[in-house]
Amino acid sequence: MKRPKALFFDVFGTLVDWREGVAREAAALLGPSIDAHGFADAWRGEYQPGMERIRSGAEPYATLDVVHRRNLDRILPRFGLGGLAEPVRDELVKAWHRLDAWPDVAPALRRLAPHILLAPVSNGHIALIVALKRRNDLPFDAVLGAEVAGDYKPKPRVYLRACEAFALAPADCMMVAAHSDDLAAARACGLMTGFVARPDERGPGRGETEPRGPVDAAGRDLGDLAERILS
Amino acid sequence: MKRPKALFFDVFGTLVDWREGVAREAAALLGPSIDAHGFADAWRGEYQPGMERIRSGAEPYATLDVVHRRNLDRILPRFGLGGLAEPVRDELVKAWHRLDAWPDVAPALRRLAPHILLAPVSNGHIALIVALKRRNDLPFDAVLGAEVAGDYKPKPRVYLRACEAFALAPADCMMVAAHSDDLAAARACGLMTGFVARPDERGPGRGETEPRGPVDAAGRDLGDLAERILS
Repeated sequence: MKRPKALFFDVFGTLVDWREGVAREAAALLGPSIDAHGFADAWRGEYQPGMERIRSGAEPYATLDVVHRRNLDRILPRFGLGGLAEPVRDELVKAWHRLDAWPDVAPALRRLAPHILLAPVSNGHIALIVALKRRNDLPFDAVLGAEVAGDYKPKPRVYLRACEAFALAPADCMMVAAHSDDLAAARACGLMTGFVARPDERGPGRGETEPRGPVDAAGRDLGDLAERILS
Repeated sequence: MKRPKALFFDVFGTLVDWREGVAREAAALLGPSIDAHGFADAWRGEYQPGMERIRSGAEPYATLDVVHRRNLDRILPRFGLGGLAEPVRDELVKAWHRLDAWPDVAPALRRLAPHILLAPVSNGHIALIVALKRRNDLPFDAVLGAEVAGDYKPKPRVYLRACEAFALAPADCMMVAAHSDDLAAARACGLMTGFVARPDERGPGRGETEPRGPVDAAGRDLGDLAERILS
């Protein structure tokens, strides 16, 4: 395998543990009686449909904070919280800014940084990704992804705009993700692909352990994938 | 003065010494007989008119590499180099990717980074700014500026798009530059402004030593300005 000149990272699920972080923040804001993990799962369950209205062109690009807020309003009644105050809703949206990276992530990025350009290519907007970068000390060269492209993955524009921003051909860039659909979309745009196993992303045993399609490299975590890329 | 939540940096002249860097690269590529500093000055002299066609809307946004290349083609005949080969022209454009930061810059940014969000808001495109960030080890949170805005400073959109990317009000952001016109444009958009003296930017004694209009802070170099911002 040729060494890529840039690595593009999916963030939610691949670099950071959204489920534990959202559950922790939900419990803190909504009290111990809430099913915090069920709440996180329900919220994330609205993620793809929430973006689809923008991807389809029915609505203009809006940040993930806006999408998260709409999706939150949709799930609150299911948890008996249809009357939750506006300021608490706003604060809950900020839960997504306070997620912790999986423990292998920061060391792996520091290992890769001297050799390869690194950028998030996430559906998170710049302010959100910067908050996660700061919280977890992630050494990115730039923040690419949905906001720079003005659209959401898996639309081709998001991957291609990232390559363009680094002035690189897609074949010199690798998309890294724990989600086979993200990698398949990047591959269709001509990027290399690297799979990271996150077996517990959606709860114990409820994450992808192996890629469902062809990839250029796969690792049991990001440290393992980093060694394969650098070897 | 209220402490800003984000600092936006002009790059060419404010953070990096374009004149010495371009002169060094020109001498290496064109030989010792060239007036390397005169060449750098002539090239930079085409900078504002070269962007004006894009700012005016007469041409769509193109990266600074494209603008630099057009401007290079314009000045080469003045130096008796109208027949210079295409690959050498391409390599000369890369001179702008190989500029050194003024010596006070990296320490000042490291001093500021724990306290305030930091981003370049330059007319340089992302790939160019990332090259300078890597070369000089500059701890930016994101790369904002012309490419993210799709237009060139001093158009208001460039400053306002940077504030928006960090989800901050203009009044919480400070533009930092060695150029009074850049700061005046940012101030007109509601940003705070910080002036850095670069007395030798355009050659010995040919840079701004004091702001020509009102600013929120001014420093004799970036380290001095950083202490004023943090005090």
